[in-house]
Amino acid sequence: MFGITPSARLRPSPYFEATLSEGVTAFTTYNHMLMPTSFGHPEAEYWRIINGVSQWDVACERQVQLKGPDAGRLAQILAPRDLSGCSIGQGKYAPLCNHAGVLINDPIVLKLADDLYWFSIADSNIWFWARAIAEERGLTVEVSEPDVSPMAVQGPKAEDVVASVFGDWVRGLKYFWFRETAIDGIPVVVARSGWSKQGGFEIYLKDGARGTQLWNIVKEAGKSRDIGPGNPNWVERVESGLISYGGDTDRETNPFEVRMGKYVDLHVADDVIGIKALRRIHAAGPRRHSLGIVLEGKDPITFGFAWKDICKDGAKVGDLTTCTWSYRMKKNIGFALISTRCKAGDAIEVVMQGKVIPGTLTELPFL
Amino acid sequence: MFGITPSARLRPSPYFEATLSEGVTAFTTYNHMLMPTSFGHPEAEYWRIINGVSQWDVACERQVQLKGPDAGRLAQILAPRDLSGCSIGQGKYAPLCNHAGVLINDPIVLKLADDLYWFSIADSNIWFWARAIAEERGLTVEVSEPDVSPMAVQGPKAEDVVASVFGDWVRGLKYFWFRETAIDGIPVVVARSGWSKQGGFEIYLKDGARGTQLWNIVKEAGKSRDIGPGNPNWVERVESGLISYGGDTDRETNPFEVRMGKYVDLHVADDVIGIKALRRIHAAGPRRHSLGIVLEGKDPITFGFAWKDICKDGAKVGDLTTCTWSYRMKKNIGFALISTRCKAGDAIEVVMQGKVIPGTLTELPFL
Repeated sequence: MFGITPSARLRPSPYFEATLSEGVTAFTTYNHMLMPTSFGHPEAEYWRIINGVSQWDVACERQVQLKGPDAGRLAQILAPRDLSGCSIGQGKYAPLCNHAGVLINDPIVLKLADDLYWFSIADSNIWFWARAIAEERGLTVEVSEPDVSPMAVQGPKAEDVVASVFGDWVRGLKYFWFRETAIDGIPVVVARSGWSKQGGFEIYLKDGARGTQLWNIVKEAGKSRDIGPGNPNWVERVESGLISYGGDTDRETNPFEVRMGKYVDLHVADDVIGIKALRRIHAAGPRRHSLGIVLEGKDPITFGFAWKDICKDGAKVGDLTTCTWSYRMKKNIGFALISTRCKAGDAIEVVMQGKVIPGTLTELPFL
Repeated sequence: MFGITPSARLRPSPYFEATLSEGVTAFTTYNHMLMPTSFGHPEAEYWRIINGVSQWDVACERQVQLKGPDAGRLAQILAPRDLSGCSIGQGKYAPLCNHAGVLINDPIVLKLADDLYWFSIADSNIWFWARAIAEERGLTVEVSEPDVSPMAVQGPKAEDVVASVFGDWVRGLKYFWFRETAIDGIPVVVARSGWSKQGGFEIYLKDGARGTQLWNIVKEAGKSRDIGPGNPNWVERVESGLISYGGDTDRETNPFEVRMGKYVDLHVADDVIGIKALRRIHAAGPRRHSLGIVLEGKDPITFGFAWKDICKDGAKVGDLTTCTWSYRMKKNIGFALISTRCKAGDAIEVVMQGKVIPGTLTELPFL
């Protein structure tokens, strides 16, 4: 593995010191922040999410805040999902597109008040995007990145841990709903959310100076359930079919290609960015779709950084966008962004590390 | 140093295989690409730029291409520098600002034709930004990121190497001017440019499949002058006073604060983004400015990831945005983004790694 050189372009999170204490060994960068990706024990970190409870520094899920009389209007202009039924205290997963219907992010939109929204974003600059649109359309709304840094608590035992910190009311939270609260005077938002399918919460820290304190409160509360450090887990997310914007998408990907069609409401107003293009794409049918791949072979494969060609009958039909060893399936599995002419069950080949590896297309999720 | 975990969100460059062969040991991420930052011999890499010739993978300086009848109009709308005198074959350094006059990038704008511009960008998503503005203003222009990947050749012996590859005409290129050409059938643009003050060129590869081939052509041509691998060098750039967008700027920085005022033309048309705000800021005078800092002490300091507070008489007056050991000055030097009440010659203190380190403000550049 290569080293990552410090630079002020890459911001540490409020939990940086805490993750150092936990023995973080590797990072990725995400929204110009460092996100821990390993604490040196990848398999143990995986099973902790599947069977126990895991604590993640996901401060890099930055919040783009829309505040002011036109906040709701801007939120709807940015998202081709109908947000009119979104209540205060509710979050909604929403793909964002550019004017051509190309996916540019897939945030959770949190409605904190009629004039206050957060977009809890994936890895692209929605601050730039939202700001440009707001100014060009003359809207009365302030677009900012507030001091808000999520920490995730994920796994089947996460609810017990979060309830022991904040109270049993968290057990009643519906998926993506949230409540503003505080613990030991630390202001937070607690949401049922998180980038795994093992259940859990995200705690949005609203005071970056208190990251270590919040980390340790949760760690202490989880001790009896063997809580430990983790991160958005590459293996679990592939098994669960979770798309990574920017990793599994390119500069032509539309929501229909990556199983996000159900989050697009074609009836939203014409001033919603991308909706006209999305209607056209929907009518014509997408050119590609997202499927699973199971590769032959009994040893873990190293995927590396770049997409790999998927071939069928000697011709390229799509791209392998990620691939990992599944500890539960004991196979190498991955995602295909592939021609709609290809279907689950089809035999394909992947060219990786100079070798041709046979495989089979599958439906998603795997588990 | 921490590891960096592979992910398809972080794209390898066309020179990735070549830099692996050169023994790259560390990367940073820049525009969602991997940029080599060390080949394991930092001091040797530094002196190679100062005294010899160094070869850099700067493919992460992505090109945002504006193409179409409104390309020139969009370029001017995006840049608060007067581009009307820019000739075909000429590049101009131009700060880009948002509507509030906040710096959002500082590209070289290359005019390839009346209807074709490249913005050779720093580390922020100008594809998003330019695309949003073009669509919102109804301009007839295609905004894309073409298959173009710069390699830099820097140092006092760079001109000899580049001339031996492309011909003596490169010696006549003026700063930021360029010419489209080819070598062994590889299409490139050769510009006198580069992020150092030691002189040199950037070779913009226009076919990503041929990165290794181009790398090796330049490497072979440079052998007699002891060419070797390097990267935008942190020590040289601090000595030379070169600002890093995103590293030395924050979400409130305007061009006047970071010595870019001479690249802002206040007379450009009112539809140029940010110009009205920039006129107001210029009239009122900026709140902060950029100065050098020389710290006391005879041993190199590790700066890390985040900005450090600069204090004077016990109160915070600014931020240390970067700091490095200067091999030529044999001192720790850095950049201050600091209140305009502070001047060169003032004594200040920096809080770093739990210690208070005295220092002195200076003019820039250092060398």
